[in-house]
Amino acid sequence: MLDPQSKDQLILVAGGAGFIGANLCLELLERGETVVCLDNLQTARPSNLRDLEGHPRFEFIRADITEPLPETVMTRAGRFKRIYNLACAASPPLYQADPEHTMLTCVVGTNRLLRLAEQGGARFLLTSTSEVYGDPEHHPQREGYRGNVSCTGPRACYDEGKRAAETLAFDYLRTGRADVRVARIFNTYGPRMDPDDGRVVSNLVCQALSGRDITVYGDGSQTRSFCYVTDMVDGLIRLMESDTAIGMPVNLGNPNEMTVNELLTHVVALTGTVAAVTNLPLPQDDPRRRRPDIARAAELLGWEPRVPLSEGLAATCAWFGDELGVVSKAERRVAARG
Amino acid sequence: MLDPQSKDQLILVAGGAGFIGANLCLELLERGETVVCLDNLQTARPSNLRDLEGHPRFEFIRADITEPLPETVMTRAGRFKRIYNLACAASPPLYQADPEHTMLTCVVGTNRLLRLAEQGGARFLLTSTSEVYGDPEHHPQREGYRGNVSCTGPRACYDEGKRAAETLAFDYLRTGRADVRVARIFNTYGPRMDPDDGRVVSNLVCQALSGRDITVYGDGSQTRSFCYVTDMVDGLIRLMESDTAIGMPVNLGNPNEMTVNELLTHVVALTGTVAAVTNLPLPQDDPRRRRPDIARAAELLGWEPRVPLSEGLAATCAWFGDELGVVSKAERRVAARG
Repeated sequence: MLDPQSKDQLILVAGGAGFIGANLCLELLERGETVVCLDNLQTARPSNLRDLEGHPRFEFIRADITEPLPETVMTRAGRFKRIYNLACAASPPLYQADPEHTMLTCVVGTNRLLRLAEQGGARFLLTSTSEVYGDPEHHPQREGYRGNVSCTGPRACYDEGKRAAETLAFDYLRTGRADVRVARIFNTYGPRMDPDDGRVVSNLVCQALSGRDITVYGDGSQTRSFCYVTDMVDGLIRLMESDTAIGMPVNLGNPNEMTVNELLTHVVALTGTVAAVTNLPLPQDDPRRRRPDIARAAELLGWEPRVPLSEGLAATCAWFGDELGVVSKAERRVAARG
Repeated sequence: MLDPQSKDQLILVAGGAGFIGANLCLELLERGETVVCLDNLQTARPSNLRDLEGHPRFEFIRADITEPLPETVMTRAGRFKRIYNLACAASPPLYQADPEHTMLTCVVGTNRLLRLAEQGGARFLLTSTSEVYGDPEHHPQREGYRGNVSCTGPRACYDEGKRAAETLAFDYLRTGRADVRVARIFNTYGPRMDPDDGRVVSNLVCQALSGRDITVYGDGSQTRSFCYVTDMVDGLIRLMESDTAIGMPVNLGNPNEMTVNELLTHVVALTGTVAAVTNLPLPQDDPRRRRPDIARAAELLGWEPRVPLSEGLAATCAWFGDELGVVSKAERRVAARG
């Protein structure tokens, strides 16, 4: 709990106990900021919070942004200089478990935080998603591409929810109510991912580490582009802190596209797993290809990912190994060298 | 005010004082139904309500569906057998005047009515829009086409709002919470349109009747397909009352595509106007072409439009003439014949 008498400026991170949110909070604290984290703990990992809660410049408030924001937030509206909105379940099984709540988190929740930004004059950043492009027909995806989203399908609660959240953000910008920034985040991986959230990196790494059969959806020829989380956090902070007007969404992700099978090869090499691979049917509306065009981020923010997959994946395997209590081949190698 | 002791089943029409809503209420009353109309009167015409309020089976409640539904609605939840949601400003200048409210009407408002349908077991119909196709790249538009909508532009509050409302509706259907129907309404015209709402038929007819200069956006080569309102109301009721499962959105509109200049020729002939035509720039994201594929409605509902443009436009001119207190050439012809 922060000192309520203090006049320090604050950064609000909604969804700050989630995977990217917790990494963002840690980096902001590292840079000397004072951070208030809102999270409903719907999909966040308690261990993410444990890494944060001891910090003297960190405060956690359990709250769901679909509900009116807590009194302790509203009374400090004028002290927030930055509001990051990362709040929303982000993996298909989790956001589909309660589609109404997913939609309201994106629309009602984002709107509450935008109103808070307006009230206190904070700069606002929405983490949108590559899912706004749906199953894209253009590669790589540029920000001007309008996407190929089914608004009636089972993924729509997230995809359309995020599109609607972007709409709200740009309406606040257009009408002068708040200075907003919108990041479209592509696949990201790294420490503090949820082992059980059904995303491809966590699935493959955790299955490989635990010796379970490895599940690949479809034939594994669908592509993704994986960005290491420290690169993503750096991009988010650069986007938020850029003093040039942005006025449009910015893709953040790693343009190094690979098939799920290629990713699997890396994971097998790093973990030394001998587990069998089972191919299951592709989920409905699963995108076949996805790769960001990051020219806009490069030009406006001077940003590009720096961590190579080999390095990021080794760190991720090591972290999951700790979490799951197993030792990966990469760690054994490191230990043998040490 | 209806008898509160009655056990009659009711039909709720949200947005029932608007253009299509008032025509729908009148038709439902004509068919012997008891109708409760919710409207915030944001864009509705008071004269529409005057046509309805004398009816013994009609009740008007002024309410905004972005707010909690009134007690008098919630206490009768079990008596609503049908809920039509037509509530939302529908013309660009009106829905852009308060984009936040437009988005919340679509998302929060639709969700409140869906919850009401779930609670009382009512069947629910959402009036969505051809705007979910954005500026379409496929012609005519089939329901499976995913559209070309800018989610960050000035029209997005409506287009993305309606897409998100469809998402909610189909999520309620998929999870067994309510039986929902979704109509994607294309351009509609007829009596009870708002003369000032900025839509092309009302603009041209009212300017022609009042002798003002006639405004055409762009060069007038963009196309629209105009459905007369009695046809539209018939389609909505058929969609609502169909006892076969629908499970997907259904286009309702007239596939008779014409340019705005062709429409203007009809209006000039009917009104005998000699006013000058001024061409103004096309608004941002204005669709160049739009024509519904109505094969699904024909197959599932046995529906197609029946009123030819000449007939519908004459009736519309006559009605606007009454409203504006002027007499059109068509009416003069009718009077001369009579």
